Amino acid sequence: MGKMWGGVFNKNVEDSVLQYTSSINIDKLLAKFDIEYSIVHAMALEKAGLVSKQELNDIVRILKELSKNFEENNIKISEDIEDIHTFIENYLIEKLKNTAYKLHAGRSRNDQIMVSVRLYCKQDLELIIDKINKMIKAILKIADANKNIIIPAYTHLQHAQPVLFSHYLIAYINMFKRDIERLSEAVNRLDVLPAGSAACTGTSVNLDLDFIAKKLGFSKISDNSLDAVSDRDFIAEILSGLSILFMHFSRLAEDLILWYSQEFNIISIDESFCTGSSIMPHKKNPDALELIRGNSSKIYGNLFSILTLLKGLPLSYNRDLQLDKEFLFPSINTAVGTLDILIFLFDKVKINTESVDKLLKDEKLYITDVAEFLVYKGMPFREAHEVIGKVYKHCVENKMKFSDMSLSELKKFSGLFDDKVFSLFNPNKSVNSKVTLNSTNPDIVSRKISELLKEFK
Amino acid sequence: MGKMWGGVFNKNVEDSVLQYTSSINIDKLLAKFDIEYSIVHAMALEKAGLVSKQELNDIVRILKELSKNFEENNIKISEDIEDIHTFIENYLIEKLKNTAYKLHAGRSRNDQIMVSVRLYCKQDLELIIDKINKMIKAILKIADANKNIIIPAYTHLQHAQPVLFSHYLIAYINMFKRDIERLSEAVNRLDVLPAGSAACTGTSVNLDLDFIAKKLGFSKISDNSLDAVSDRDFIAEILSGLSILFMHFSRLAEDLILWYSQEFNIISIDESFCTGSSIMPHKKNPDALELIRGNSSKIYGNLFSILTLLKGLPLSYNRDLQLDKEFLFPSINTAVGTLDILIFLFDKVKINTESVDKLLKDEKLYITDVAEFLVYKGMPFREAHEVIGKVYKHCVENKMKFSDMSLSELKKFSGLFDDKVFSLFNPNKSVNSKVTLNSTNPDIVSRKISELLKEFK
Amino acid sequence: MGKMWGGVFNKNVEDSVLQYTSSINIDKLLAKFDIEYSIVHAMALEKAGLVSKQELNDIVRILKELSKNFEENNIKISEDIEDIHTFIENYLIEKLKNTAYKLHAGRSRNDQIMVSVRLYCKQDLELIIDKINKMIKAILKIADANKNIIIPAYTHLQHAQPVLFSHYLIAYINMFKRDIERLSEAVNRLDVLPAGSAACTGTSVNLDLDFIAKKLGFSKISDNSLDAVSDRDFIAEILSGLSILFMHFSRLAEDLILWYSQEFNIISIDESFCTGSSIMPHKKNPDALELIRGNSSKIYGNLFSILTLLKGLPLSYNRDLQLDKEFLFPSINTAVGTLDILIFLFDKVKINTESVDKLLKDEKLYITDVAEFLVYKGMPFREAHEVIGKVYKHCVENKMKFSDMSLSELKKFSGLFDDKVFSLFNPNKSVNSKVTLNSTNPDIVSRKISELLKEFK
Amino acid sequence: MGKMWGGVFNKNVEDSVLQYTSSINIDKLLAKFDIEYSIVHAMALEKAGLVSKQELNDIVRILKELSKNFEENNIKISEDIEDIHTFIENYLIEKLKNTAYKLHAGRSRNDQIMVSVRLYCKQDLELIIDKINKMIKAILKIADANKNIIIPAYTHLQHAQPVLFSHYLIAYINMFKRDIERLSEAVNRLDVLPAGSAACTGTSVNLDLDFIAKKLGFSKISDNSLDAVSDRDFIAEILSGLSILFMHFSRLAEDLILWYSQEFNIISIDESFCTGSSIMPHKKNPDALELIRGNSSKIYGNLFSILTLLKGLPLSYNRDLQLDKEFLFPSINTAVGTLDILIFLFDKVKINTESVDKLLKDEKLYITDVAEFLVYKGMPFREAHEVIGKVYKHCVENKMKFSDMSLSELKKFSGLFDDKVFSLFNPNKSVNSKVTLNSTNPDIVSRKISELLKEFK
Repeated sequence: MGKMWGGVFNKNVEDSVLQYTSSINIDKLLAKFDIEYSIVHAMALEKAGLVSKQELNDIVRILKELSKNFEENNIKISEDIEDIHTFIENYLIEKLKNTAYKLHAGRSRNDQIMVSVRLYCKQDLELIIDKINKMIKAILKIADANKNIIIPAYTHLQHAQPVLFSHYLIAYINMFKRDIERLSEAVNRLDVLPAGSAACTGTSVNLDLDFIAKKLGFSKISDNSLDAVSDRDFIAEILSGLSILFMHFSRLAEDLILWYSQEFNIISIDESFCTGSSIMPHKKNPDALELIRGNSSKIYGNLFSILTLLKGLPLSYNRDLQLDKEFLFPSINTAVGTLDILIFLFDKVKINTESVDKLLKDEKLYITDVAEFLVYKGMPFREAHEVIGKVYKHCVENKMKFSDMSLSELKKFSGLFDDKVFSLFNPNKSVNSKVTLNSTNPDIVSRKISELLKEFK
Repeated sequence: MGKMWGGVFNKNVEDSVLQYTSSINIDKLLAKFDIEYSIVHAMALEKAGLVSKQELNDIVRILKELSKNFEENNIKISEDIEDIHTFIENYLIEKLKNTAYKLHAGRSRNDQIMVSVRLYCKQDLELIIDKINKMIKAILKIADANKNIIIPAYTHLQHAQPVLFSHYLIAYINMFKRDIERLSEAVNRLDVLPAGSAACTGTSVNLDLDFIAKKLGFSKISDNSLDAVSDRDFIAEILSGLSILFMHFSRLAEDLILWYSQEFNIISIDESFCTGSSIMPHKKNPDALELIRGNSSKIYGNLFSILTLLKGLPLSYNRDLQLDKEFLFPSINTAVGTLDILIFLFDKVKINTESVDKLLKDEKLYITDVAEFLVYKGMPFREAHEVIGKVYKHCVENKMKFSDMSLSELKKFSGLFDDKVFSLFNPNKSVNSKVTLNSTNPDIVSRKISELLKEFK
Repeated sequence: MGKMWGGVFNKNVEDSVLQYTSSINIDKLLAKFDIEYSIVHAMALEKAGLVSKQELNDIVRILKELSKNFEENNIKISEDIEDIHTFIENYLIEKLKNTAYKLHAGRSRNDQIMVSVRLYCKQDLELIIDKINKMIKAILKIADANKNIIIPAYTHLQHAQPVLFSHYLIAYINMFKRDIERLSEAVNRLDVLPAGSAACTGTSVNLDLDFIAKKLGFSKISDNSLDAVSDRDFIAEILSGLSILFMHFSRLAEDLILWYSQEFNIISIDESFCTGSSIMPHKKNPDALELIRGNSSKIYGNLFSILTLLKGLPLSYNRDLQLDKEFLFPSINTAVGTLDILIFLFDKVKINTESVDKLLKDEKLYITDVAEFLVYKGMPFREAHEVIGKVYKHCVENKMKFSDMSLSELKKFSGLFDDKVFSLFNPNKSVNSKVTLNSTNPDIVSRKISELLKEFK
Repeated sequence: MGKMWGGVFNKNVEDSVLQYTSSINIDKLLAKFDIEYSIVHAMALEKAGLVSKQELNDIVRILKELSKNFEENNIKISEDIEDIHTFIENYLIEKLKNTAYKLHAGRSRNDQIMVSVRLYCKQDLELIIDKINKMIKAILKIADANKNIIIPAYTHLQHAQPVLFSHYLIAYINMFKRDIERLSEAVNRLDVLPAGSAACTGTSVNLDLDFIAKKLGFSKISDNSLDAVSDRDFIAEILSGLSILFMHFSRLAEDLILWYSQEFNIISIDESFCTGSSIMPHKKNPDALELIRGNSSKIYGNLFSILTLLKGLPLSYNRDLQLDKEFLFPSINTAVGTLDILIFLFDKVKINTESVDKLLKDEKLYITDVAEFLVYKGMPFREAHEVIGKVYKHCVENKMKFSDMSLSELKKFSGLFDDKVFSLFNPNKSVNSKVTLNSTNPDIVSRKISELLKEFK
C-alpha cells in the first residue's frame, strides 16, 4: 500500500523495518479523530484557496463515508500499513485521486497526530471524570445508608480507635475528589490546537487556526510550532493523574480485601462479584479487587515509560514519540474498566455488623479516650499517656480487662480517675466525644454527608 | 533520650530497631516548621482552656529560643533520637517540665508531621516557582538579544527546516510556563490544614482549627481525619510536577550538549561553567549540563518510590509513610540547585554565528519550501512531495546541488518550476515565508517575545 | 461457556466482572505449552491409577488434535472465556465428557499456569539468546572488515582521543556478551518444575514429578509448593536482563543516530532501513533506531510494573499475579523484533571515511598523547598536564594550531619538547602508541577480533 | 583547593558550578578503596620505570598514613573539593610535591573511579550475602523449633488449606537462596579490573595489568577500554538483585504485619522490636516491618534511576555517570541495615498456637481434601469439585457445619461418601494426606529442614 513519502528513495524499505516502525495496531483507535480533523483541515484549505468548493465536498463526503464504515466495523486494515493517518489518506486517494493529493498541504504527520491524540484525550478523560463522579455517588449511597455504623480504625494495621464506617468512606471520597480536580486541570492544559505547526517550523499555507480550533472544540491554539510537535507533557500529566487515582484504588482494594478475609470479616461482597477456584470447591475469591490493586502497577509502569521515553530527547520530533500511545491508550482503557467494576461493586457490599461488634469489644480501642479523659481532669497529656500505658500494661500482665479494674485499683495509678472512666469503653461514646471539625463525630459526619449528597446528585 | 511513648512497654526497644526506625537525619529539615506549628498549637490549647496564659508564654519563649538556636546553627542533635518532633518536645521538657507535658494534648505525630511537611512544601515550592520565573527571564533575554538569528531545526536529529533561534528558546519557555502552572496547582491543592485529626479519628480536645489555619497561613482545613493522616497525594503530585520539569531540563541539556559538540558547534559556553579532565589537558566539558540531564533520573526514581510506597497501603497511618521525606526533600533540593545553575548558564551562552551559517548552507533545509512553492503553483501537495523527492534524488546521484540545476532541467520534473525557485535557498526567505500563527515567522516571534517580556518583567 | 468452578455459587458472576478478570486475550499465547503439559499430566494420572490407558489415549488424541488446530490457526476463541486453560479443558470436555473431567485431578490453575509460563520463558529466552549471538556476529563482521579505521572517541560528547572503529564496536560486543550471560543464568534459574503444588500445599494425588519433569524437559523440581505458586522472581529477573539489554540498545542507537546526523556524518545507513517524512521530501530518517531507543522505556516500565505488582503481596497465590503476563509477553516480543532489526541493520552500515578524516584533523584529539610524551621525557604527569594545557590555551588565544608552533616557542613552555612532538598529531601514531591490554592498539584489537571470530562462528 | 586540571582554563569555574558538580559528599565512602588502588598503581608505575623505588616508598607511606587517618576518623574534608580522588591526590601533593605529581600517569579519573567502585561492590556485596546467610539460619531455627505447627495457608487472602508453619518459612528460605545466587553471579560478573583504560582508549604507560589485578584481588581484566569506563551494567544488576531481595522482604513483612494484627493473631513479636504511639498509650506497633516493606520502594526507585540514567548515553564517559553512586550506596546501606533488623526479629517471633487453633476450625480449609477423597473413590475430579461445592453451599444456606451433616444427607449428593469423610476435618490429617515431593507433608518438610540445616550450618 501507498506511503506518504517515497520520491527520494531508490530502494523499498525492508519489510521488517516497515513492520517495526508501524503503529497501525495501536493508533487505529484514532481513526474517528483523524477523520474529524481531516474534514476540518480540508475546510481550512478551501478557505486558503488551495482546494475548491467541489473538491471540499468530495473529500468531506468520502471521509464521512469512511467514518460510518469504521463505526459499523466494516473496515479491514491490513497490518502492513504505516499508521492510521496513512490508511485514511490512502482510502481517500483510492476514491478521489488528485483531489485527495491536495489534503496534506500545510500539515505534517507531526502536527496531525497531535491533533488526533489531543482530541482523543479530551473525550476519554471526560468519560473517566464522569465515571469517577458515578463511583463517588455509589460510595456516598453506602455511607448514607450506614451513617452510624462504627468499625475499628487502624494505624499500623493495629486497632487504633472506633470510627464511623461512613467517615472511613468519606476519606476515599476526598481522595477521588482530588483526582477529579487533577484530571480536570490536565484536560484544561492539553486543550490546545497544535495544527499549523507542520513539520516543526510552521507552514506557508495560510491556515485559519481560529477556525480550525473552533470547529474542533479546542479552547486554545499553540503559539509555538516546535513545542507543538515535541510536547508530550500532557501524556505524562494524564498518566501521573491516573497513577495517583490507581494508588487510591489500590489502597481501597487492600482495605476491602482485608475486610473480606475470614479474620477481619467486616464486609460481605455479593458472589456475583467473586470468582472461584479450579481446585478448591469452597472458594469465592475477590479476584476483581486483586486485579484492581495489581493494575496500579501497570499504570505506574506506563507513567515511568513515558517519562523515560522523553528523557534527553532533543527537539523537535523524534520517532521515539510514536510509542507514547502504547503507554497512554491501555492506561485509559484500564481506568475505564476499573471504574465500571468499582461502581458495580459498591452496590454489592454489605457490612457484617455482628462480626464488627465483636471487634469493637477490644478495649485497646478506648485507651486513648481514657488518656484524654485524664487531660480534661487536669493531667498534662504526656503524663496521662504514661499513666494509661502503665495501667494497660498492668491489665495485660494480669490477664484482665481495663473495665474489670476497680476504681480503687485505678486510683493507685492516678487520683484523678473516677467512676465515669468505665463508661468510656463504648464505641458510640467514643465517636461522640470527638469535637474537631474533621473528626468522626456523628453530627459532623452527618453534615458532611448531606453536603456531599448535594454536591454529587 | 526520652521518647513520646513508653508506659506500656516492659523492655527497652533494641538499639538497632530504634536506629532503623529513626528519621532524624532527614526530618531535621522540618525543625523550623514544627516549632512554628507547636507555638500555634499551644495557643489553641490555651484557647481550649488546657494551658494557662503563663504556660503558653513559657512554651512560646522556649520554642522561639530553640528556633533562634537552629537558625544560628547552635543545635547539636544526637543520632539516637527518634525524630525532630521528639527532639523539640524533649528540649521543651528539659526546660519546662510539667508545662511541656501539656503540649501534645489533642494531637498525634500522625497529624503533627503532616502540618510541618505541608508548611515545608508550600515554602519550598514557592521558591522553586520563583526560580523558574527567573530562569525564564534569563532565557528570554537571550531570545530577545538574538531575535533574528537562524539555526537548523531538527527532526530525527536530521536537518529539517530553518528556524529562528528565539523561536527555539520560546519552545522551552512554553514548557516551563506549563511547569509553573502545574506546580502552582499542586501548592493550591496541598494548602490544607490537617491538624485536629490526632491519631486518625479526631480528638475530644476542642481545637479552634480556623484559628490554627489562619495563624499558619493555610487557606483550607481538612474535613476528614483519616484522610488527613493517610494522604500523601501531594508528595506524589509534587514529584510528578518536578519529574516533568526535569524531563524538560533533560531535553534542554541534551540540545545544549549537542550544540556544544565540535560537530554541531552552534553555541559556546563560558569556561566558568565547564570543568576539565584529569588526563586530557585540552578538555572543557559541559559537566553541569550532563548532571542536569542525569538528575532527571533521580527525580523520576523518587516519584516511583513514593507511588510504590503508597501502593496497597490500607488506611490510616502506616509507618511506611515516614519514608516519604527521603524521596521529597532531596528532589526539592536538587530542583533548587539545578535552577540556580541554569539561571547562571543562560548568562554565559553565545551563538557561533559563523559556524551556524555553514550549517545553513545545507540545501536539504529548503526542500520543503520548494514543495510548498509548487503547491502554490497549483500542484497537489502529495504530487509536489513526490516530484521534489525525485529532483533531490537526482541531485544526490549526480553529486550536484539543487541550486546548480538549470531551469530547463527542473522543468523535466515539472513544468510548474520557474526562476523564483532558486531564491528559496535562503534561511531568511524560508522563515519569512511561514504564515501560521505558531510558525517561526520573525514578525510573529517578535510579537511573542514582546508579550513574554511583559509577562515576565 | 463452562468455568472451572461454580458448584458453590448461587448466582452467576456479573459479565463485567468476568471480562475484567479474564486473561484470554493475553494468555492464548500459552496454548501450545498448556497442551504439552496437559498431555504429560494425563500420563502422570495414568501412572497414579486415576486414569485408564484408554482414557489417556483419548485425552492425548484430542489434545494433539487441538494443538494441530492451533498451529493451523483453525481455532476461534470467544472473548468471554476466563483463560486459555479453561478453554482447553472445555474443548476436551466437549469431546470426551467424563474422561475429560478427570484431567484436573492433582493440579490447580495456580501450578498449571506456572508450568506453561516457565515452558514459554525457556523457549523464548533461548530464541533471544540465539538472536543476540547472531547480532554479535553481524557486528563482528563489520569490525573485522573495518579493522583499522580510526574515528574520534568522545567523552562528554567532546573529542577525546583517536580510537579504532573496531575497538568501539567491541565495546558493544562486550556488553552483549554480558547480556547473554545474564539471560542464560535466568533461564537456568527458572528451569524448575512447579507441578505437584496444586493450590498451594501439594496434593494427595500421587504424581511422579520426576517423570513429569523429564517429559517436559525441566532440569529441576520445585521443593516447596507455596513458593512454586507464588514465585514470580523469574519474570522480574528476565525483565531486569532485558532492561539492561535494551539499555545497551539505547546507547548503541544513540551513537548511531549521532553518527548519522549531518553534523557527525560518520556513517551511512542503507535507505532500505530508513523511512521518509510526510511533508519534507528530502528526509531519510533513521526511525527504526529511534524506536529501538524508545523501546527501552517500554521494557523498563514493564520491569517496574512487575516489581511493583509483587511488592507487599502476602503468600501464596493472589490474583494480582495474573497480570505478570501483560508485562512479560510484550517485552519478549519487543526484544525479538528489535534483535531482528539490528541484525539487518549491521549489514547496511557504511563508514564515511572521507568525512571521518576531517574530524580526525582536530588537534585536540592528540593533546593527551603530547602530555604522555612529556611524561616519558621525565616530567611528572600532573605537571605535563598543566604545561600542555597552557600551550593549548596559547594556541586557542592566538588562533593557531599546535603543530604550527615552532620548537623554540614550545621550549618556552618546557625544555623537554623536541622535534618528535610534531609527529604525534597523527591518528595511526596515536592508536599505535597505546600499550595497555585493553587499549585501542591495533595489534591488541586485531588479536581480540580473531578470538571473537573463533568464539562466535 | 587544587583541582586535577586547570592549565587550559583562563577563568575560575564558578562556585555554584563546582558545588553542583562535586560528588565529595557521597564518594568519600570510596576513600579506602581509592587509597588501596593508588598504592598498587604507584607500584605499577615503578615497574614501568616512571617512578623510582624511593618515590614509591614515599607515596606508599603517605597513603598508608592517610588511610590510617581515615580509619581513625581524623580527616576533615572540606565541601568545596571536587571528589575523593582529588582530595587524596591533593593530600599527597601537599606532603610530597613533585613525587605526587607523578602518580596520575597512565590513568584518568574515568578508570580510577571504576576501580574503586568495583572494589567497594565486591566487599559490600559479600557482606550482604553473608548476612542473608545469617538470616536464613535464623529463619531455619524457628522452622526447626516449630516443625509441626500448622497454620492456614491463604490464597487471595482467603482460607485455602492447612499448611505447616515450617513449610511456609521454607518458601521464604527458597526465595532468599535465589537472592544469594543472583547476587553472587553479579559479584562474579563485576570482578573485572578496568585499570589501563585511562580516559577511554588506553595509555602509552606500560602498566602491568596482571600485576595490578592480582594485588587488588580482581580475577579478570577488562579487555576493552571504552567499555571499561562506560560500563555501569554491574550497578544496574546489583540494584536488580537488591530489588528482588526487597520484594521478598516486602512480602515477608506483609505476612508478618497481617499475622501480628488483632484479627489474625498468628504471631507475637517481642516488644523490644516494636515502637509506640505519641497519642495512643496502648500501642506496640511493628514499625520496623512497615519500614522494611516501605524500603522496597526506595530500592526500586534507585534501580529505575540507574537504568534511566544510562538510557541513550553515547559512549564513552559522560558526567551523568557520576550520579550512579547516589543510587548504589544508599541501597547497599539500606540492605545491610534491613538484614540486621530481620536477623534480630526472627529471634523474637512467637507463634500464638491457641489463637491459630481457632483459625484451623474453619471447615473451608478441608473442603479440597474432601474433593480429593471422592476422586480416590472414583469420581472424576471436575465432578467431585461440583458435588462438594453444592454440599458446601447447602451448609452455608442452612447455617450448619459440613461435619454436622449425616452420612445419609451426604449420600443425597453422592453415593460415594462414607463414614471416613468426617475424619478429614483435621489439620494433621490434611497435611499428612499430601504426597507430592513439594507438598506440606510433615515427613517431606522434615527431611527438607534437615538438608537445609546441613547447607546452612
